[in-house]
Amino acid sequence: MAIRVVTELREMQKIADDLRASGKRIGVVPTMGFLHEGHLSLMRIARKHSDFVITTLFVNPTQFGPKEDFARYPRDFERDRRLAEEAGSDVLFMPTTEDIYPAGYATFVNVEGITDLLEGKSRPGHFRGVATVVAKLFNITKPHVAVFGQKDAQQAAVIRQMTRDLNFDIQIIVAPIVREADGLAMSSRNSYLSSQQRKEAVVLFESLRLAEKRIAEGVVESSAMREEMARHMTKFSAGEIDYISIADHETLSELDQMSKGKTVLISMAVRFGTTRLIDNIVVKV
Amino acid sequence: MAIRVVTELREMQKIADDLRASGKRIGVVPTMGFLHEGHLSLMRIARKHSDFVITTLFVNPTQFGPKEDFARYPRDFERDRRLAEEAGSDVLFMPTTEDIYPAGYATFVNVEGITDLLEGKSRPGHFRGVATVVAKLFNITKPHVAVFGQKDAQQAAVIRQMTRDLNFDIQIIVAPIVREADGLAMSSRNSYLSSQQRKEAVVLFESLRLAEKRIAEGVVESSAMREEMARHMTKFSAGEIDYISIADHETLSELDQMSKGKTVLISMAVRFGTTRLIDNIVVKV
Repeated sequence: MAIRVVTELREMQKIADDLRASGKRIGVVPTMGFLHEGHLSLMRIARKHSDFVITTLFVNPTQFGPKEDFARYPRDFERDRRLAEEAGSDVLFMPTTEDIYPAGYATFVNVEGITDLLEGKSRPGHFRGVATVVAKLFNITKPHVAVFGQKDAQQAAVIRQMTRDLNFDIQIIVAPIVREADGLAMSSRNSYLSSQQRKEAVVLFESLRLAEKRIAEGVVESSAMREEMARHMTKFSAGEIDYISIADHETLSELDQMSKGKTVLISMAVRFGTTRLIDNIVVKV
Repeated sequence: MAIRVVTELREMQKIADDLRASGKRIGVVPTMGFLHEGHLSLMRIARKHSDFVITTLFVNPTQFGPKEDFARYPRDFERDRRLAEEAGSDVLFMPTTEDIYPAGYATFVNVEGITDLLEGKSRPGHFRGVATVVAKLFNITKPHVAVFGQKDAQQAAVIRQMTRDLNFDIQIIVAPIVREADGLAMSSRNSYLSSQQRKEAVVLFESLRLAEKRIAEGVVESSAMREEMARHMTKFSAGEIDYISIADHETLSELDQMSKGKTVLISMAVRFGTTRLIDNIVVKV
């Protein structure tokens, strides 16, 4: 069936109400559009866990910093519509900024603690924007299940915490990272890269693989490993490292030692010119 | 039918889901218990607008300041249960503090702007606690309609704003203040008053009536009227005035002049010993 494009908030809520009244399970996949295989994998997972899949497409201004790429964030509606339809979405919900943040808008959702670290530290206010818009999208699409990507590992943790804390009756699924053939994590922002940068960008994944190997070999000191990862990236690319983090995968607090049995989130942000890429891997020590 | 007492969050969500699945309309009345005629009027209004009324009873620690009356806030469960039942509530939802704020709790809802004024100014953090717990109770009880009292005029404004901003698909009804025979607004905190304080406490309503009379007579200067109200209260009681506000009834911003056609919220907070009372009136100039 052809995908239905919905822009009105009330109409979206009415569709959700009608689906729920007829006993249907709703799955939602929040995106900022410019869809790639990563997003499509989320839709396919949502499909498996629900009867009706709503993909939301909203480039959310409140999660961009004043010097970030909100204005130039890539957009391609016709392509997105086709891809979302092919991946099994029933509705593409595409609200306007004016409807999401009308004049006099004043309410924000803050998840404290974990939002001060990593991406939150580098991008102040980012997760306040994310948590707020996701809470809103939950209330507009009324899903039973929502699917997010592990690519944004900290975002997934923030949304899990918010969902639990605010008692949203929604199952959160976090889906594995989808990568290009050479290992680069798929991202809408990859489209910003020059061909040289694109080639070099594989150093993120390479350094994560290197870390995984070192852990298997018994390396326990985080600082030594972080330095080795940084050396690799600096040697084989012009990328400027924003952070490399070796943290507890739940609390996201930094670990000096990777002790046996721990599940560790190794994550990083690296700038190639004005393009900022992130990647991560979860390793059981 | 006997009222059902529910303490488990998941059980409450399940009841709400089943009601919705069978096409029933849910009304919710959030309270901190120690019910009086004011609360009961809210339940009767909820009854009129829904098929099933959930009264919540939770003394919410996050909306009390460190020096406020959380520990001594009055409690009388057996009486509350009987009164809620008589007023037509179907469920009394009474969660534990540990279930509402489990270990590691970290998420707060902030309504900016109007929460900095009046009660928010006198009670920093109060409305953050209110907005957060109401968002949670909305997600747990899944109502179609929620009823709040005009007694807490600013709270009603904050909840309206939050409901609109976060796209909660819930109708908010604000019900008129219920007063004692002498005009004192009903409040669970009235039980703190000594018999002398109780007699004097009528000055709040008297000064509001005085203001209403002066507006009818054509007084337009807010400062003159505020002074007259303060004089009345100081002359006939030992109450210490926290604030007297003459504000736009929607934005809550203070008005120097009460111009014709304006709808004005006149509100106040007054301390009698350690007991803090509030009252208000809305006047169309």
